[in-house]
Amino acid sequence: MATGKVLETVSADEARRVLDAAAAKAAEIGQPMDIAVVDAGGNLKAHLRMDGANIGSIPISINKAYTAIAFQCETGELQENTRPDGPIYGLNDAHGGRLVVFPGGIPLVRDGKIMGAVGVSTGTIEQDQEVAEAGVAAY
Amino acid sequence: MATGKVLETVSADEARRVLDAAAAKAAEIGQPMDIAVVDAGGNLKAHLRMDGANIGSIPISINKAYTAIAFQCETGELQENTRPDGPIYGLNDAHGGRLVVFPGGIPLVRDGKIMGAVGVSTGTIEQDQEVAEAGVAAY
Amino acid sequence: MATGKVLETVSADEARRVLDAAAAKAAEIGQPMDIAVVDAGGNLKAHLRMDGANIGSIPISINKAYTAIAFQCETGELQENTRPDGPIYGLNDAHGGRLVVFPGGIPLVRDGKIMGAVGVSTGTIEQDQEVAEAGVAAY
Amino acid sequence: MATGKVLETVSADEARRVLDAAAAKAAEIGQPMDIAVVDAGGNLKAHLRMDGANIGSIPISINKAYTAIAFQCETGELQENTRPDGPIYGLNDAHGGRLVVFPGGIPLVRDGKIMGAVGVSTGTIEQDQEVAEAGVAAY
Repeated sequence: MATGKVLETVSADEARRVLDAAAAKAAEIGQPMDIAVVDAGGNLKAHLRMDGANIGSIPISINKAYTAIAFQCETGELQENTRPDGPIYGLNDAHGGRLVVFPGGIPLVRDGKIMGAVGVSTGTIEQDQEVAEAGVAAY
Repeated sequence: MATGKVLETVSADEARRVLDAAAAKAAEIGQPMDIAVVDAGGNLKAHLRMDGANIGSIPISINKAYTAIAFQCETGELQENTRPDGPIYGLNDAHGGRLVVFPGGIPLVRDGKIMGAVGVSTGTIEQDQEVAEAGVAAY
Repeated sequence: MATGKVLETVSADEARRVLDAAAAKAAEIGQPMDIAVVDAGGNLKAHLRMDGANIGSIPISINKAYTAIAFQCETGELQENTRPDGPIYGLNDAHGGRLVVFPGGIPLVRDGKIMGAVGVSTGTIEQDQEVAEAGVAAY
Repeated sequence: MATGKVLETVSADEARRVLDAAAAKAAEIGQPMDIAVVDAGGNLKAHLRMDGANIGSIPISINKAYTAIAFQCETGELQENTRPDGPIYGLNDAHGGRLVVFPGGIPLVRDGKIMGAVGVSTGTIEQDQEVAEAGVAAY
């Protein structure tokens, strides 16, 4: 029988801190958001849909955080390369509908290691990015 | 044991009224349509595939209505922003194949609250939109 | 252009209160849990994976909450009827892999209306149920 | 360019007649239902979720009607053979989660040909079957 627990890379306390900081920023700019935090394996650690945020942004926020883990970068960094004239056009069709290639997903980095990620969705991409950055700042 | 029923946001009578008005407009313009009505949670309340309407438009009509709930807007409002050079290009690849980003899905609004949505498909996007609007007018 | 927001049936504050009460009970009994809260449409409102809880219980907790909405009952009430010799054996194979037919999902009821649901997973079914009940009690 | 329309096997009028008769019977016995009608290809022709019927029964009703087409029989006829000790145990795991192997789905037959099917869900299997039969009787 297996003994031991799966390595935790983001604690529930950290996830809550990131989520609360993001939600505070969202409230400050007056744009309710879906906010998701995933661990280094890309698996959901915490999620909150603020009142007024999009139902459709539940998977978008989770998938933004997943994408930041999956490609070890901010989701916004994938945007130009995946456009129709870009070198990896089609990337987001090649992964079962889980990739988001516009801003709002950012890795959580400690000592040069990506330990998790935050994803934010419902606002404009500038707002999503700003709120995600506020979450990262609290990590 | 749980007692109580899930809150209904669109009644069967309302859904039928929207559906019938949309079907009447579709008949008037001579373009058979798939017509779907969903509730505030994006769950199907009623659907009709008129004679001659597309089989492929069954999910498109349902997904148009879902998208209108999911992003709290008409589906046509997503069209420009999701084009190849738009800020959220790729949105419709990031949600498991349930989003429609062209006209024909419209929220049903009462007292400032979106209570459901109608989705129409088979015709041109102008026809789909016109028929959906006829459905909304009967709500 | 659509004006209005989708009707909220569970507020973020309510979801957090349910989630925190469930997490407190889980901590008390020494069993980390995945905890999910959904609204009346079965859409995710909040989720937390406590440190040590199962990755595999992310969807199970969300699907338990969804199932409580989908069938307007506690998930445990589906258990006997869906067993191999039961009248609706096979129910959980007939819904795309989203139904959970054992304890841990409970509706959130107000004034006779189901407004949302909580789902808990990782422990034994008795523990999952106990933690879900603690969440409901805080609603 | 293709000329012609896909053969219609169930008309919208017929689907509505079946659906209305089923809904009338459901009202008579005091059990709200999800009711679906599909054509000979197993594709949705009409659906209604009565007020108080299950959200989870949307796909179950549609899948019951589909199953009746898919296996050219009433869904109840699959029940004993698919139980753990039956000859086709596992059938409902082998079709992507679209098969229902308990009563409530019945073919619509004309001149010895199955032209469509009706599926009913939310009540007990006896109620689902009774309401489906009322629908068939109006075909």
